[in-house]
Amino acid sequence: MAFESKIKTIEWVDNVSRMIDQTILPYEFKTVDIKTTKEMYYAIKDMIVRGAPAIGIAGAHGVSLSAIELSKTINDKNEFLTELQKQADYLKSSRPTAVNLMWAVDKQMQLAKNTQGDVKEITKALIENGIKLENEDIEINKKMGDYGAEVVPKGATILTHCNAGALATVGYGTALGVIRSAYAKDPTIKVFADETRPRQQGARLTTWELTQDGIPTTLITDGMCSYFMSKGMIQMVVVGADRIAANGDTANKIGTYTVAIAAKYHNIPFYIAAPLSTIDTSIKSGKEIPIEERSHEEVTHINGDWICAKDVNIINPGFDVTPHELITGIITEKGILKPDFETSIRKAFLNN
Amino acid sequence: MAFESKIKTIEWVDNVSRMIDQTILPYEFKTVDIKTTKEMYYAIKDMIVRGAPAIGIAGAHGVSLSAIELSKTINDKNEFLTELQKQADYLKSSRPTAVNLMWAVDKQMQLAKNTQGDVKEITKALIENGIKLENEDIEINKKMGDYGAEVVPKGATILTHCNAGALATVGYGTALGVIRSAYAKDPTIKVFADETRPRQQGARLTTWELTQDGIPTTLITDGMCSYFMSKGMIQMVVVGADRIAANGDTANKIGTYTVAIAAKYHNIPFYIAAPLSTIDTSIKSGKEIPIEERSHEEVTHINGDWICAKDVNIINPGFDVTPHELITGIITEKGILKPDFETSIRKAFLNN
Repeated sequence: MAFESKIKTIEWVDNVSRMIDQTILPYEFKTVDIKTTKEMYYAIKDMIVRGAPAIGIAGAHGVSLSAIELSKTINDKNEFLTELQKQADYLKSSRPTAVNLMWAVDKQMQLAKNTQGDVKEITKALIENGIKLENEDIEINKKMGDYGAEVVPKGATILTHCNAGALATVGYGTALGVIRSAYAKDPTIKVFADETRPRQQGARLTTWELTQDGIPTTLITDGMCSYFMSKGMIQMVVVGADRIAANGDTANKIGTYTVAIAAKYHNIPFYIAAPLSTIDTSIKSGKEIPIEERSHEEVTHINGDWICAKDVNIINPGFDVTPHELITGIITEKGILKPDFETSIRKAFLNN
Repeated sequence: MAFESKIKTIEWVDNVSRMIDQTILPYEFKTVDIKTTKEMYYAIKDMIVRGAPAIGIAGAHGVSLSAIELSKTINDKNEFLTELQKQADYLKSSRPTAVNLMWAVDKQMQLAKNTQGDVKEITKALIENGIKLENEDIEINKKMGDYGAEVVPKGATILTHCNAGALATVGYGTALGVIRSAYAKDPTIKVFADETRPRQQGARLTTWELTQDGIPTTLITDGMCSYFMSKGMIQMVVVGADRIAANGDTANKIGTYTVAIAAKYHNIPFYIAAPLSTIDTSIKSGKEIPIEERSHEEVTHINGDWICAKDVNIINPGFDVTPHELITGIITEKGILKPDFETSIRKAFLNN
């Protein structure tokens, strides 16, 4: 059963990529129109758009914008494709951990190379494919939501970390898509949202989008999860993913691994919700996933204010890797993959 | 070996209790003079002074202030003691979880009842005893520091949560006292400080006091601990305590339990540093420790700014209980207590 979310995070409109500015939520709701490759690079890097599936679509739109720009001055197809590849590589360098960005940009480049016709026709094909990927993302999310809803216990309180919601996708969500589908079937379910320091995507984005949709949500700080688990107040954990290795090891927002350990200690099921495009079968284990190191200001400042002594050291990894042995299942658009993940992931890709 | 800290958190000076205002650190360093019982109640409740041992001393000073006030109008000893007990009960109600407050206030009341002489003499005895407890607190901390330093591995990076430092005591620290003593012996040791949302005592207070003393400190957000543990970057955890039950279960700042679970998962030793006055032998297990529920604004606001959607639910437990099976040892002024704690705690009190 699908629950309609009102949120459209990223959308191709009149030759621009229109996106909700997630850096100012929940204080202000505003969309911005991204018109050039460079603007898209910074929109991704500075997290105006964030969330693995959404930055995949942003990357696809980015290639469309590059094609529009290049086609204004280049007519030679080979030269066009060479320059387009440079722009594609530039877009892929905006954020290193989420594989959906690489996946979507590569998909666009493959299409560009395989398209018959001239530069104008390639550009048109890229734009159409960007829109197609956009629409597919919502459909994939809804399928994942339906599969995921089947494993949500009746009346459960579900803990989630960061924002793997409508705002992390085109408009329904991966982890929050599962919650939306579960809520449509059972309006007694509730959500606990981790604040998710340093960037507070849980506090700023998850509480905003779930309360917009009327789903009962409690905000907790990141250290509190174990307390509520020990009190029997959390029945399930579901989070998104930025990259999943062939053995099921999952990179997701920093702090996810801590939640997974706490869930294991309390025997609470811990699920990942992610489309197959998040699975990187080219890498064997989580050890090979590059972890983005982000700016120190994300830790030392909140809303522009210092929160600590000025001469303290900072290390700010954007992600951590949850080892596969802590994961109960990976909810995908092809069903729920169960351990051993090496086998279930291989099978899912064979049937894809 | 003792390391001299420059910080004097609470001190009896000219018939007032002078304390560092911890609500404005690290932005501003200011002391406030507490002159009445009511002022002391709010200084403890609003966390101008915080940390279990420090609020114990604050409670003791509070009774001295009550005696000074009452002795101005009451000459009858029985009436004085009755009224003093009311003020003592009022002071004890300011914060429910930390047992040191109850311990110190009760110690003062016992002294008041046992003191020969008139109201003036009782008042004088209470003031002197408040100062004595103050001095003893530093001595106890230094003993704990020396015992604790023995179990710190050479060159270790030590993770701590919240602030169990000079600012949580009269002036040396429990968990940070262990770190100070270890650093005096081995200047290659380093500290990782958890931010400790919601009130950020780790970011605001621990980074401030450790960098004041020149001890290398890295601030991390609460969700990051497991990441650094998995990378082999943390060799030991040491935290303070607000109340320890007879079986070793330990109430400490919310988030401690999550760190303890992560330490267990990575086989990293997890120590509590606390004076015997933090152990409440009247309760069998952590289940009996009352957990203070604090205001919602601590979660929804940082430095006065909203950080989440306005119609979100909040639950804000101030503490959690780490079960004894996750604790490697309890560092006290009488040595390090090891499992089983029921036995080692009983023995420590027999020799006390």
